[in-house]
Amino acid sequence: MPMGIRLGLCQMRVTPDKQENLRRAESCLRQAAAQGANLALLPEMFNCPYENACFPVYGEPAGGETWQFLSGMARELGIYLAGGSVPEIEGEAIYNTCYLFSPQGEELARHRKVHLFDIDVPGGQRFMESDTLTAGSQITVVDTALGKLGLAICFDIRFAEFFRVMGDLGAQLILVPAAFNMTTGPLHWDLAFRMRALDQQCFVAGCSPARDRSASYVAYGHSLVCNPWGEILTDCGEGEAVRVVDLDLGDLARYRAQIPILSGRRTDLYRTKQQT
Amino acid sequence: MPMGIRLGLCQMRVTPDKQENLRRAESCLRQAAAQGANLALLPEMFNCPYENACFPVYGEPAGGETWQFLSGMARELGIYLAGGSVPEIEGEAIYNTCYLFSPQGEELARHRKVHLFDIDVPGGQRFMESDTLTAGSQITVVDTALGKLGLAICFDIRFAEFFRVMGDLGAQLILVPAAFNMTTGPLHWDLAFRMRALDQQCFVAGCSPARDRSASYVAYGHSLVCNPWGEILTDCGEGEAVRVVDLDLGDLARYRAQIPILSGRRTDLYRTKQQT
Repeated sequence: MPMGIRLGLCQMRVTPDKQENLRRAESCLRQAAAQGANLALLPEMFNCPYENACFPVYGEPAGGETWQFLSGMARELGIYLAGGSVPEIEGEAIYNTCYLFSPQGEELARHRKVHLFDIDVPGGQRFMESDTLTAGSQITVVDTALGKLGLAICFDIRFAEFFRVMGDLGAQLILVPAAFNMTTGPLHWDLAFRMRALDQQCFVAGCSPARDRSASYVAYGHSLVCNPWGEILTDCGEGEAVRVVDLDLGDLARYRAQIPILSGRRTDLYRTKQQT
Repeated sequence: MPMGIRLGLCQMRVTPDKQENLRRAESCLRQAAAQGANLALLPEMFNCPYENACFPVYGEPAGGETWQFLSGMARELGIYLAGGSVPEIEGEAIYNTCYLFSPQGEELARHRKVHLFDIDVPGGQRFMESDTLTAGSQITVVDTALGKLGLAICFDIRFAEFFRVMGDLGAQLILVPAAFNMTTGPLHWDLAFRMRALDQQCFVAGCSPARDRSASYVAYGHSLVCNPWGEILTDCGEGEAVRVVDLDLGDLARYRAQIPILSGRRTDLYRTKQQT
């Protein structure tokens, strides 16, 4: 049996100052650990303003300063740490990358955002990640002492089949650093997180930057955890917040028995397959 | 270009009297047509109480009394008619079946509920359709002068891949006779309809019986239409209601361009396929 999870959501404010961002992340992680978290989640692009012009400037290779910071925090606090996301530079490419660290500070997994955020809503939000970023090509589910953890980043949550494959790979809790905006947040944030949890009958957690109306890209906030019924267990609201939530993966079997969403699939009629 | 759709939702009350149910359906359909509907949708099991004991008793073969009634109403009113669902008897089997009729009264398609509703929530709803019903084995999308229409029945909406296949087959509007209950309705009705529409970037409409607290199975009501943004265009509330909604399938391209949920899929990494 996996041990119980106490997940700490760190809805920090992201500033233009990278060092300040690392200090804020450190403060949030210490607060989460002090509340007993054994797993913590940071927001998407937590060390860098969410702007195409910033990604090459703030980007670092794996093993760089931010990677070292995250590894060191996980080790010092003795927690699993899903380090939000950061611009990761490898050769000519920049990825939007989430590193997962063990309580020993080892990198257990690295998810590079698979679906880039290219949106153009007249009168609403426009953003083209593909102007600077390269998409990842891996689906990431990793077995840990806490249970099987899936990783996704923001726009990845738009894709039902991507989550279905993570479910099929055994994901029990899917961690999603994300930064919806003031167009898509009110419309789709709760909806998407709730439904992905319900469809996979697993837990899904999202962590956003705190809302900052002075930023060029205004994040929606509302970091949350959804249970396999599609219910929101906690919602961090708009401002800076550190919130811990207890999750018992032993509950999954009960949810799955009550309503046969996974077992009732008609794989004789349709099937989602990972392409290899 | 397909013509514009004016969809009429007929949230009728379903009683234990089959003749009374047909009369109520007729009244609703006439009201919808009087408001200009060119397509009407009736609720799941609109001619029969939603009870396993009733399905064999109220069931009829295709071409039977209810089929004739639906065909005749479609022809007389000159509308497309998705005839909710009824218990359809074929040999030893009973199906939960939705017939779609043309304005000429021809049967264009027949969807037999593919995912049977077997649920057991302690302290909540218990129901086992599989005690009496046989599941269908077809995915139903049909081309009409109004556009490509998909058909699903109630619990079918739980299955993301089933809807994805309908989307891949070109469904622009998916019609879902349904009867959620007082456990699953408040939790999942809006959520599921909104998200299926958003995931397929198409319109999805659900039609429930009106809520009847004296029935053995209390339907949630709240018949609705969702647009490709996952927004609810109309919600019929709890009681008996006939509501018409105008849908322009020409809008689909605009929704799909603004946010690339369909075009952004990474079919190099995952793919949902219809099994044949």
